[in-house]
Amino acid sequence: MNSFYTPESAIIIVAHPDDIEFSCAGTVARWTQGGARIAYVLCTSGEVGIAEKGMTKAQAAEIREEEQREAAQIVGVNNVIFLRDPDGMLQATIELRKKLVREIRKFKPEIVICGDPTIVWAGDDYINHPDHRAAATAALDATFPAAGQPNLFEELESEGIFAHKPHKVYVTGWNESDLFVNISTTIELKIAALRAHKSQMKGWDPEPRIKEWAADRAKGKEMEFAEGFRVVTLVSDEDWEKTKGSVLA
Amino acid sequence: MNSFYTPESAIIIVAHPDDIEFSCAGTVARWTQGGARIAYVLCTSGEVGIAEKGMTKAQAAEIREEEQREAAQIVGVNNVIFLRDPDGMLQATIELRKKLVREIRKFKPEIVICGDPTIVWAGDDYINHPDHRAAATAALDATFPAAGQPNLFEELESEGIFAHKPHKVYVTGWNESDLFVNISTTIELKIAALRAHKSQMKGWDPEPRIKEWAADRAKGKEMEFAEGFRVVTLVSDEDWEKTKGSVLA
Amino acid sequence: MNSFYTPESAIIIVAHPDDIEFSCAGTVARWTQGGARIAYVLCTSGEVGIAEKGMTKAQAAEIREEEQREAAQIVGVNNVIFLRDPDGMLQATIELRKKLVREIRKFKPEIVICGDPTIVWAGDDYINHPDHRAAATAALDATFPAAGQPNLFEELESEGIFAHKPHKVYVTGWNESDLFVNISTTIELKIAALRAHKSQMKGWDPEPRIKEWAADRAKGKEMEFAEGFRVVTLVSDEDWEKTKGSVLA
Amino acid sequence: MNSFYTPESAIIIVAHPDDIEFSCAGTVARWTQGGARIAYVLCTSGEVGIAEKGMTKAQAAEIREEEQREAAQIVGVNNVIFLRDPDGMLQATIELRKKLVREIRKFKPEIVICGDPTIVWAGDDYINHPDHRAAATAALDATFPAAGQPNLFEELESEGIFAHKPHKVYVTGWNESDLFVNISTTIELKIAALRAHKSQMKGWDPEPRIKEWAADRAKGKEMEFAEGFRVVTLVSDEDWEKTKGSVLA
Amino acid sequence: MNSFYTPESAIIIVAHPDDIEFSCAGTVARWTQGGARIAYVLCTSGEVGIAEKGMTKAQAAEIREEEQREAAQIVGVNNVIFLRDPDGMLQATIELRKKLVREIRKFKPEIVICGDPTIVWAGDDYINHPDHRAAATAALDATFPAAGQPNLFEELESEGIFAHKPHKVYVTGWNESDLFVNISTTIELKIAALRAHKSQMKGWDPEPRIKEWAADRAKGKEMEFAEGFRVVTLVSDEDWEKTKGSVLA
Amino acid sequence: MNSFYTPESAIIIVAHPDDIEFSCAGTVARWTQGGARIAYVLCTSGEVGIAEKGMTKAQAAEIREEEQREAAQIVGVNNVIFLRDPDGMLQATIELRKKLVREIRKFKPEIVICGDPTIVWAGDDYINHPDHRAAATAALDATFPAAGQPNLFEELESEGIFAHKPHKVYVTGWNESDLFVNISTTIELKIAALRAHKSQMKGWDPEPRIKEWAADRAKGKEMEFAEGFRVVTLVSDEDWEKTKGSVLA
Repeated sequence: MNSFYTPESAIIIVAHPDDIEFSCAGTVARWTQGGARIAYVLCTSGEVGIAEKGMTKAQAAEIREEEQREAAQIVGVNNVIFLRDPDGMLQATIELRKKLVREIRKFKPEIVICGDPTIVWAGDDYINHPDHRAAATAALDATFPAAGQPNLFEELESEGIFAHKPHKVYVTGWNESDLFVNISTTIELKIAALRAHKSQMKGWDPEPRIKEWAADRAKGKEMEFAEGFRVVTLVSDEDWEKTKGSVLA
Repeated sequence: MNSFYTPESAIIIVAHPDDIEFSCAGTVARWTQGGARIAYVLCTSGEVGIAEKGMTKAQAAEIREEEQREAAQIVGVNNVIFLRDPDGMLQATIELRKKLVREIRKFKPEIVICGDPTIVWAGDDYINHPDHRAAATAALDATFPAAGQPNLFEELESEGIFAHKPHKVYVTGWNESDLFVNISTTIELKIAALRAHKSQMKGWDPEPRIKEWAADRAKGKEMEFAEGFRVVTLVSDEDWEKTKGSVLA
Repeated sequence: MNSFYTPESAIIIVAHPDDIEFSCAGTVARWTQGGARIAYVLCTSGEVGIAEKGMTKAQAAEIREEEQREAAQIVGVNNVIFLRDPDGMLQATIELRKKLVREIRKFKPEIVICGDPTIVWAGDDYINHPDHRAAATAALDATFPAAGQPNLFEELESEGIFAHKPHKVYVTGWNESDLFVNISTTIELKIAALRAHKSQMKGWDPEPRIKEWAADRAKGKEMEFAEGFRVVTLVSDEDWEKTKGSVLA
Repeated sequence: MNSFYTPESAIIIVAHPDDIEFSCAGTVARWTQGGARIAYVLCTSGEVGIAEKGMTKAQAAEIREEEQREAAQIVGVNNVIFLRDPDGMLQATIELRKKLVREIRKFKPEIVICGDPTIVWAGDDYINHPDHRAAATAALDATFPAAGQPNLFEELESEGIFAHKPHKVYVTGWNESDLFVNISTTIELKIAALRAHKSQMKGWDPEPRIKEWAADRAKGKEMEFAEGFRVVTLVSDEDWEKTKGSVLA
Repeated sequence: MNSFYTPESAIIIVAHPDDIEFSCAGTVARWTQGGARIAYVLCTSGEVGIAEKGMTKAQAAEIREEEQREAAQIVGVNNVIFLRDPDGMLQATIELRKKLVREIRKFKPEIVICGDPTIVWAGDDYINHPDHRAAATAALDATFPAAGQPNLFEELESEGIFAHKPHKVYVTGWNESDLFVNISTTIELKIAALRAHKSQMKGWDPEPRIKEWAADRAKGKEMEFAEGFRVVTLVSDEDWEKTKGSVLA
Repeated sequence: MNSFYTPESAIIIVAHPDDIEFSCAGTVARWTQGGARIAYVLCTSGEVGIAEKGMTKAQAAEIREEEQREAAQIVGVNNVIFLRDPDGMLQATIELRKKLVREIRKFKPEIVICGDPTIVWAGDDYINHPDHRAAATAALDATFPAAGQPNLFEELESEGIFAHKPHKVYVTGWNESDLFVNISTTIELKIAALRAHKSQMKGWDPEPRIKEWAADRAKGKEMEFAEGFRVVTLVSDEDWEKTKGSVLA
């Protein structure tokens, strides 16, 4: 009766620790429960996000990486990659694009999840973080068409890494979702994963807000809680079945 | 995990035999399976819809009423009321409004389902039937506020019929649904009910078209097939629990 | 510094007692303070709106007319006309159009205020009252072009009443206003006028709701409270200065 | 290189003399030049539109009918039918619908041109005339599905008139056109036809305004002047080729 | 009766001399009259904007800076900072972001005014200047979240400059304003300030154009002239009252 | 009867070989037939687009440049400029902007055709290529205002190249076109030009897809096939007649 689809693998690319938990950890939990292979790629380690007297940025980064690894494990993800670009100053450079192409080609995911690079304005009391825009731009540009082009960043072949075309891109975001994932059975995991970012909670209980947002997206769809995505299909279902992303040079 | 709501009762008001089957019979089936009390009200008996040499309109009406009763039974509905206004010439008069108020007050439904009176244009190869607009206007005007006003059509009290305020209106239609009902388990009943209108099929197999439409509405919501509605809440959940629609004069 | 315009005269046409108070009494108050001549025309006397054991509709109508007259006086209006069409069953007939043409031609207003006949849906917990749609349709159709056509309803000439073209129509409503009237100095009068409809209050204090709505429309315009209108100009400012609405046959 | 389509026949249904000239006479001219059979149906004779001391409405109607016939001839149309419903008080009654069904069934047009019944607001200095809305509603309701239903208004068979399903409806109007007809070669005929309504010109030269409007619609389409339509296809091209609108009972 | 708000301080960040005068100098004038502390930050000195035989860019920059200082004084602003990035080649680099963070942290404004980085298309005869997009991007990225993060650009502490979170951002621009400031009493100052940019006037009288634009935005709001902004609140009113933007590390 | 405009000259700026053929070669063909002087500027040579064992990128670039020159000749264009920035890594740098300014100032075009830098999302199975966004941004920023500013990139004067203000920008793209060019007579040339990119065809026949797209844009405009553009006028027709783009320092 339901038509729920679990990909065989997915890579999620974001700017900071906790970005995944806010946007799509409920979906990730369903996918890991369904047996999917998942990797997280964090462009920065969020070292700007802890500002305590006497703590160095390096120490802050270490804490946040550890919290992110715990958050990942809560939803069944063990593969967490940190690119360690500077937090608060992330730029969508060709270098970052190449680093992301490397991870995509290595992991060979069916799905790439990333943010929406076009979003600047986000309601009347928030502006989209410039790092989010940079990570989203770099992730999207790495995914299409770069990762799937044998003749681009071909020097990665010397690392034994070859072109890979993902099946689909899932874009998290506040606007116009066309796919809603029912996270009613995994919302507690999502909240637990968010709570693993202890340095960011400071007495704030994320449960009511996360449930309110997720209920809002679930509304009218026979779901209690949902996450929403814009989906772009880069390789047709048919072709994906044959190639699983591999590209012959 | 799912948040599906079955009302205790619902009345569905349309212009013609088969209008319910096209728009909401899958939802009706789920509701009757959940124990809901349902009534159908048909403003006309669709006598224009069979044009055969030598057949009178009265005979055509009889055939179509019988088909509608069968279609109703397929989804578990036994209560089918025919107002017998003229097919093809339905007008949203005060008289029709009063007839509908009578049925609503008698049946005391939690939900009224009707069409959208504002729709004229419907794609580039269909125009909304004027009878549909008339039935939708009359149904909506009967539902709010007329049915719930003790001092309007108060002469019905002599029939032992008193004011009733329904909980919600569900508006079927092509535009901007905000509630999607998963009909994956009842779509076969919906199609069977539609097929009961034998005089309208003329060799046409409704299955592919109905499934295409229902799949389209289900898209991105973890449903295989869906029907969509615009919902307006006339009495708050709290008040409905207390009053069940009764109005003290 | 401000550019506030007070018309010399205005007629306000609505379905029921209290419709003016909800929609535009704050504007009316500013205009009467500025010396404008104002008339209210009520298509029905709202007799359905009081449902008390033992009270006849005629008695209810009397009470509501009296309340409306008091409400009018609070904002400086003495001229209140009741057409006494049936409440809850108002229809936009040619007869009603003619009655409204008579009042417009007699009063010779610069402005006609009425509702928006196209509004059916109004949020997820209200449906526009069919009487409101009927009154708005009849008022608009009476205003343009009927009132200004010497050869239409020309039999009114025998009553000494001649064609009149109003300068502008102000349409009250929930959608897309293009004119906002600052009612910060008259909102207390508006609320007092609304309270004059004692039979409708039943312990409800309208102040918070009215202020919330009016503050919402005032937002971002250096106003504390506002009412909004869609304005249609039927006679140019230049021509109005010359004709004041008179039409030569 | 161009893809211009001339129907074999068309009926144009409007409220008043000169409505056709304002909306679609340039298209009519191209069609008559291409050999199309055309009929005009006017619901009223526009008798309110001349208000002169001592002239009766009957006289005014006669003048306007004559002007309309001249305007028709200028674009090659000889068949002009007047239904003589009252100008300024046109209502979309079942009676009017039936009269229009009669004309459609008699003339058997490929195309019906009419107005858009949903338009009330039309910029900030015009309101759509209630007669236009009434004529458009009646015309649309007569065209679909009434004209093509053998069992509706079947009493017309006694006049030797049988059901006919037109191929397409062309809706004139200010909004969202999806078909643009190049009237660069016929705009002078359109203007001449409009000028034939001498009683309405009163020294006004329609040329600049008509050309401005038509140029505006032509913009960006390699046309100098255009008229715009919304098109609804009621019978597929294939079926039309076979049936030419005839319906077997 | 009016609800006008004067912040205690504001910093305005733009690309070129005269950008402030075109977009928000009328608002600035009202704020300085109300006692607000204001600073202007210009990313470039507009040296490309004077192209005269024999004049060096350095000389052009000097002239334009002087004109900008005069324009500032006309509306009561003495604090004008020039960052002297290259005109016509402005890029939203991390370096520019850091320079802007320095100025915001030093000045500790309640409000930051800047442009909208998302605007490329601006009508059919203008394209938004790339410097405007760059300045707007850098200003927005500096304001949120950079300026308020103690751990980002923390090396500025050695200059005695600490993290500061502004209360609100006001975004000038052509689209969707949600705040309108009445500049009827200051429009003459705005025009005078614009005229101070003598090198840009070349016989052009800015008065009619500026008044036309400002009247257009004032329309329907009881204002004669207005400027429009999109407002984003970064720190709630309550928190602002307590912190005035200071951030404890 | 038609209002088709052929510019005296146009420069088309894109990222890769075959971008022009997909977007605007039909329009180019009409313009060269009308005598227009045309130049193509390609930011990269598309060397990533051929991935064959043993072929170097330099060889791939050579092949694609040759294919592009052939494609150009098919529609009558001999002037093809390759900037040879790296394919797949194009960035909208100031250096690229300067290279484009050089070409624009040298060629002195009436029209610049380029892409739309704001487009990221393009349906549910394509994402706009990052090189397309970069080329469009650089082209637009080079065109306005850079190319027309004597004091920017003034060092180009040493190459005998002076400021030039183009008349109009034509933006190709999937959204909101306001100009449609009839390519019914040149669509075969467009397809032939596309086929000249042999290395990209790999057995794919572009004809059906190209015709489908072009027919879709032609719909309702008396054209069989069309290309669509958003047009921005930078220099008024009057001024262009006088200056032909030259700017006096």
